[in-house]
Amino acid sequence: MKLRDIFVLTERDLRACVHLNRDAIDIVEQAFRALASGKVIMPPILSMEIPDAHGEVDVKTAYIPGFDGFAIKVSPGFFDNPKIGLPSLNGLMILFSAKTGLVDALLLDNGYLTDVRTAAAGAVAARHLAPREVRVAGVMGTGVQARLQIQAAHLVRPFSKVLVWGRDAAKAAACARDIAAATGVEAKAIDDPAALVRESQLVVTTTAAREPILKAAWLHPGLHITAMGSDQAGKNEIEPAAVKAATLFVCDRVSQSAKLGELRSAREAGHLLGIDPPELGEVIAGIKAGRKSDEDITVCDLTGTGAQDTAIATYALAAARKAGSGTIIQA
Amino acid sequence: MKLRDIFVLTERDLRACVHLNRDAIDIVEQAFRALASGKVIMPPILSMEIPDAHGEVDVKTAYIPGFDGFAIKVSPGFFDNPKIGLPSLNGLMILFSAKTGLVDALLLDNGYLTDVRTAAAGAVAARHLAPREVRVAGVMGTGVQARLQIQAAHLVRPFSKVLVWGRDAAKAAACARDIAAATGVEAKAIDDPAALVRESQLVVTTTAAREPILKAAWLHPGLHITAMGSDQAGKNEIEPAAVKAATLFVCDRVSQSAKLGELRSAREAGHLLGIDPPELGEVIAGIKAGRKSDEDITVCDLTGTGAQDTAIATYALAAARKAGSGTIIQA
Repeated sequence: MKLRDIFVLTERDLRACVHLNRDAIDIVEQAFRALASGKVIMPPILSMEIPDAHGEVDVKTAYIPGFDGFAIKVSPGFFDNPKIGLPSLNGLMILFSAKTGLVDALLLDNGYLTDVRTAAAGAVAARHLAPREVRVAGVMGTGVQARLQIQAAHLVRPFSKVLVWGRDAAKAAACARDIAAATGVEAKAIDDPAALVRESQLVVTTTAAREPILKAAWLHPGLHITAMGSDQAGKNEIEPAAVKAATLFVCDRVSQSAKLGELRSAREAGHLLGIDPPELGEVIAGIKAGRKSDEDITVCDLTGTGAQDTAIATYALAAARKAGSGTIIQA
Repeated sequence: MKLRDIFVLTERDLRACVHLNRDAIDIVEQAFRALASGKVIMPPILSMEIPDAHGEVDVKTAYIPGFDGFAIKVSPGFFDNPKIGLPSLNGLMILFSAKTGLVDALLLDNGYLTDVRTAAAGAVAARHLAPREVRVAGVMGTGVQARLQIQAAHLVRPFSKVLVWGRDAAKAAACARDIAAATGVEAKAIDDPAALVRESQLVVTTTAAREPILKAAWLHPGLHITAMGSDQAGKNEIEPAAVKAATLFVCDRVSQSAKLGELRSAREAGHLLGIDPPELGEVIAGIKAGRKSDEDITVCDLTGTGAQDTAIATYALAAARKAGSGTIIQA
């Protein structure tokens, strides 16, 4: 039995060396571009519900040619945890060598890398689909992703004002304060979601809504919407009529969006039947057309892909090696 | 960020405290019994092929009510590794709390626990399906499982002679020597697989065969066969006519055997169409009938289940805690 080095990185290690910046956005963009090449291997998500504990666990993976490794990400969500003072969401990634299948690194990130790669994907969508000039950005929802999506989007569209809407006004105000502190941009909570959409050129929806929170009647020329909340068959943020009314509707992965995202709801309402929308990677690679004018209305649905996980895990290991952080286990 | 203890156990740690013994067999039997209750949650295997590297990776999991944790097992197989002096098969298990979804332990076993739980399942099959008296046991194949299956079976049916058949006579002789050393039983290689089956009351097939290696014409009253080699759609060890001719055919999991195991080949040959054979757990639990007489011919197909992984991982963590082995990482 020959021992090999395995890098172990904890959430603390990872928070110290992986940041939501242009490098993170670029590597996630590279993953989307690769997806469009047709050479990425990304099996369907393994999903297990544990009703006894009000829990679920998802496993995602993807092999991207040109990346040294592939990640397997395990994301448990146990929704009674807050009652005992524990976070609902956790998880880790394992990075394997794509040449030998040996374990290179264990990334015990408790979901931090997922937060980063999810926000980075929002920035990639904004970079390629939002109007060139965004003065006001709006965010619906008040959680971690509401904050991070706006921070990431600000790196690619340096807007000067942020509007935050949430069902809970106090949480919306707190979220606006955090966003202002993180971006240095004026941010305020707003009661009326219609007004938020009307005033914004870029809107990100980040909720677990099961009934649409963004209505077709609110769309206006020069709007881009990124919907990143729906990642399960029961969820739906964007009114199906809005998906239909948009000039362009783009998915991160059509096969996933059709099961877990806004494409599912749109099709259930009778829209886009038999039509596969373009994927974000295809727009990035120039295979499919993106926004054609500043007047277009674009909608991008993000369900989260294993390719993003492989990208961010690869990036994290390189960053940790550079920083000399982490622990080595011989196994 | 509150830190929690995560147990890290390497292959070396695990080999020191987890052994192929009656305890391991009993906990795997418990997993099969639970499978029959209908309360186990076991999603389909996530499988990804990486043709660029002649590799594949499988992910299995299962939640078993009554077990404190559930395991997620990642098994890469990279078949060019031996060319560069590395093993083809590797992998690890992650044990999560079934109450909170938090990581309890990382079991960096390089496939050792899979070897143990696979052999233990063979012993469970022999315990419940083989004739009461087994004098001669035969094994087809000469790899790690050929050795371990016989060791495990000997714990439940203390036979006095072992026959080993393989395509390579030298490997069969080496395997027989190892089996004799491990069990203290007379073991010899044999050229003729028909003679092996004829002389044995218990036969275990452990090969990666894609064409049947065990023929229907060789069956005889009082024979039990465990076929554990086929775990992929292209594999087949037992001639379909033998599955049909047996008094009783049992699967570890019908849904898996129908895709990856002997049930697939049998159905492709037109047998057992529309008939779901009993599962091993159902026989253990007494829900379905097992062997009814010493003259019956029984065949059990094992494809490997996530429930076994959860069982052996739980057992391994308890054994490691008792032995005080492993490393704790705070994450």
